[in-house]
Amino acid sequence: MAEWPSARGLNAECGVLNAMRIVDLIRKKRDGAELERGEIEAIVGGYTRGDVADYQMSAWLMATLLRGMSGGELAALTETMLHSGEVLDFSSLPAPKVDKHSTGGVGDKTSLVLAPLVAAGGVFVPMISGRGLGHTGGTLDKLESIPGFNVNLTLTEFRRILETTGCAMIGQTAEIAPADKKIYALRDVTGTVESPYLICASIMSKKMAEGLDALVLDVKTGSGAFMKKEDDAVYLAQLMVETGLRMGKKMVALITDMDQPLGNLVGNSLEVIECIDVLKGEGPQDLRDLCLELAAWMFYLSGKSKTVADGRKLSEDLIANGAAMKKFREMVRVQGGDEGVVDDVKRLPAAKSKVDVTSPAAGYVTAIMNEKLGTATVVLGGGREKKEDRVDPAVGLVVHNKIGDRVFQGEALVTVHYNADARLREATQLIASAYKIEPEPPAGARPLVKRVIESGGA
Amino acid sequence: MAEWPSARGLNAECGVLNAMRIVDLIRKKRDGAELERGEIEAIVGGYTRGDVADYQMSAWLMATLLRGMSGGELAALTETMLHSGEVLDFSSLPAPKVDKHSTGGVGDKTSLVLAPLVAAGGVFVPMISGRGLGHTGGTLDKLESIPGFNVNLTLTEFRRILETTGCAMIGQTAEIAPADKKIYALRDVTGTVESPYLICASIMSKKMAEGLDALVLDVKTGSGAFMKKEDDAVYLAQLMVETGLRMGKKMVALITDMDQPLGNLVGNSLEVIECIDVLKGEGPQDLRDLCLELAAWMFYLSGKSKTVADGRKLSEDLIANGAAMKKFREMVRVQGGDEGVVDDVKRLPAAKSKVDVTSPAAGYVTAIMNEKLGTATVVLGGGREKKEDRVDPAVGLVVHNKIGDRVFQGEALVTVHYNADARLREATQLIASAYKIEPEPPAGARPLVKRVIESGGA
Repeated sequence: MAEWPSARGLNAECGVLNAMRIVDLIRKKRDGAELERGEIEAIVGGYTRGDVADYQMSAWLMATLLRGMSGGELAALTETMLHSGEVLDFSSLPAPKVDKHSTGGVGDKTSLVLAPLVAAGGVFVPMISGRGLGHTGGTLDKLESIPGFNVNLTLTEFRRILETTGCAMIGQTAEIAPADKKIYALRDVTGTVESPYLICASIMSKKMAEGLDALVLDVKTGSGAFMKKEDDAVYLAQLMVETGLRMGKKMVALITDMDQPLGNLVGNSLEVIECIDVLKGEGPQDLRDLCLELAAWMFYLSGKSKTVADGRKLSEDLIANGAAMKKFREMVRVQGGDEGVVDDVKRLPAAKSKVDVTSPAAGYVTAIMNEKLGTATVVLGGGREKKEDRVDPAVGLVVHNKIGDRVFQGEALVTVHYNADARLREATQLIASAYKIEPEPPAGARPLVKRVIESGGA
Repeated sequence: MAEWPSARGLNAECGVLNAMRIVDLIRKKRDGAELERGEIEAIVGGYTRGDVADYQMSAWLMATLLRGMSGGELAALTETMLHSGEVLDFSSLPAPKVDKHSTGGVGDKTSLVLAPLVAAGGVFVPMISGRGLGHTGGTLDKLESIPGFNVNLTLTEFRRILETTGCAMIGQTAEIAPADKKIYALRDVTGTVESPYLICASIMSKKMAEGLDALVLDVKTGSGAFMKKEDDAVYLAQLMVETGLRMGKKMVALITDMDQPLGNLVGNSLEVIECIDVLKGEGPQDLRDLCLELAAWMFYLSGKSKTVADGRKLSEDLIANGAAMKKFREMVRVQGGDEGVVDDVKRLPAAKSKVDVTSPAAGYVTAIMNEKLGTATVVLGGGREKKEDRVDPAVGLVVHNKIGDRVFQGEALVTVHYNADARLREATQLIASAYKIEPEPPAGARPLVKRVIESGGA
């Protein structure tokens, strides 16, 4: 029975030094010991530089997923990934820099409201967002449904627009956290995606590259979120808050409900319409409320308001007096988009056909398997099954009934906006099977914000 | 936050089928579920065929190391690795085929006695052995210290010698369990060596390729073994016995003491001398005893003796009447070696110089850090620090005192046989630091065979 690691231990001088050290770091994590900062840099930095093989990194990632990480290890991992690329420095700007990050959901469109709203209040919002993956939508896809809107700016253009407009919304660039890109691609094919530690480091390494003073996290939980269980969402939120605090940032995480779509519209073009509604002081109550709450925390953490309640008042004012909408128009314009969509939403792409999914019985909506609504949107072409898929901005869902609503037999639950018949049946079946209709209304209140996390849990 | 595995789940038809299935198998094992036989074949067979990437296999190996395996999974893994290569079929031979496998230790040389001894009793012993790695010696290196002895036979030559001589001793060939070679090389650099499940599959896949009816396992435990703790040795033994039983083989494992060297001589040429002594009915008591006990079980499992006690009596007789020694001479001769070494051990390579390591105090040997004696032998050139190192057959240790022996101050504990001064000091320091000398003798008996395992533990 061979025991090479021991044999190699005798032989540290002989040119297998690097290979030996990496295997020892894998074994250390495997056995549940805590890695030092330099050891995390050696394996993660080494992997990014190409000095550590894919097969060693994947073994370490699996050991990390199963063994977990200490707060110190997680901060070291996040910082190593952050400093693998460019870290923006907006310290010369005359006001705080704040962003919001959501872990994603169905109908989750707050970014399009928050960036102009908070910028209108005098806080800089440098927002680097992602595309839709899985059953959830992505901010970039939503923005791109606005004719002409360009999310593919260089970091130099991003900085210029941020300085002049107060907010800018772009996609990931190659300069930001290249370690995360490389590691994520490996995690994707090695069963190491679903680790709160690795998810935290991935999110925070990218967000911290934005040169922020503060970050508000919207961690979704429920049937339409990646974290179905509230405990899992809270755990991830605590990791992210603690990691941000260790890096000297002001942090908060709101644990918010994703057991049903946020707002009533799902799909890229439709979601832009709903955001315009909110910026006009209209739109559905839940979406309005969450936008105001998140904006309130952004103002509070930035120091722009003394309390969260003051921040909320400021947000309401900025919508009521039109400043938020004015900023939205400005942002759309400077990023090349057609600001006329604000006055005429028919300038947004619209689907050719519509069909209703109706309730099979009279009663109350007691639950929605929300991921199915997201998946139905993907099946219609509104999201991506593969990275290279093109998104159809026009398709989506109008959700007429949510949890607690009383419905009649044959009443439309959802109106499907579609362009192609090919997978329509699959989509409507998903929607029909997503709704639970029962004779009695569901018990208990459904708070939109379930918990507020202001410190790490460890 | 992206969730590709879910997105892929939607998309099984689209050409990423294989990549998806493998990542799902990794996730299944990661989450502690039991893989089906076909799923183990898909990942392990796929890896051997080159269809599964190194980085996926290493993630699966780490998940397997940390999650463990069921008996059914382990049998499936072993059989997949076994059938990756040639499986010898000696069913046409007119007597049972039995082998012994040891997990390795210091001075562990029983194979050279057992093969001719058991063959002399009319049982076929097809023995495919390994080389020394780490602090332990290897059977092939010992055999090669006999001038002319050729361990590099083809499987055809192996079969011919086995048929005519009753035993044959060769090294691993490329045809035997290529999956194990490929997987072991990956485990070596990914921190996945130390798993009883993976160790079991590695050993058993190679042994089962020998076309055996029965296998006797000598699982070493103690300061000179890979399994320092008896519980670990028992666990591995139970896994191997259960796996062999599932494959229809007769199995036993002896848990034996490796807290001190077996016999008094350590080093390749020196160990051949001690084996010749045992075959002459001489040699140290512990080595004689273990050889007789292992041979007894080989005879018993093969059906050649009705009881283990009968098998032991048969073994003693075969040594007393010279049949075992005669068979040893024959085996050496047919494999090209100089059988004259039996009559004149000076024909074996001898070291140029000797030096004693003496006791620093009067008292009793109460413990030996046995791995240090093995490492000292490696340092002298008697073993390998890297796979490609050449072994010096002449160097080694003569161990004068073992646990419980009374020693005087200045008395030689060990005589070092060496050829080069370069690392002599390192070796003698290792030896000196290996001995614990105390005023009182150690308490309690030291059974050589600690336990006998005849069934799986699961």
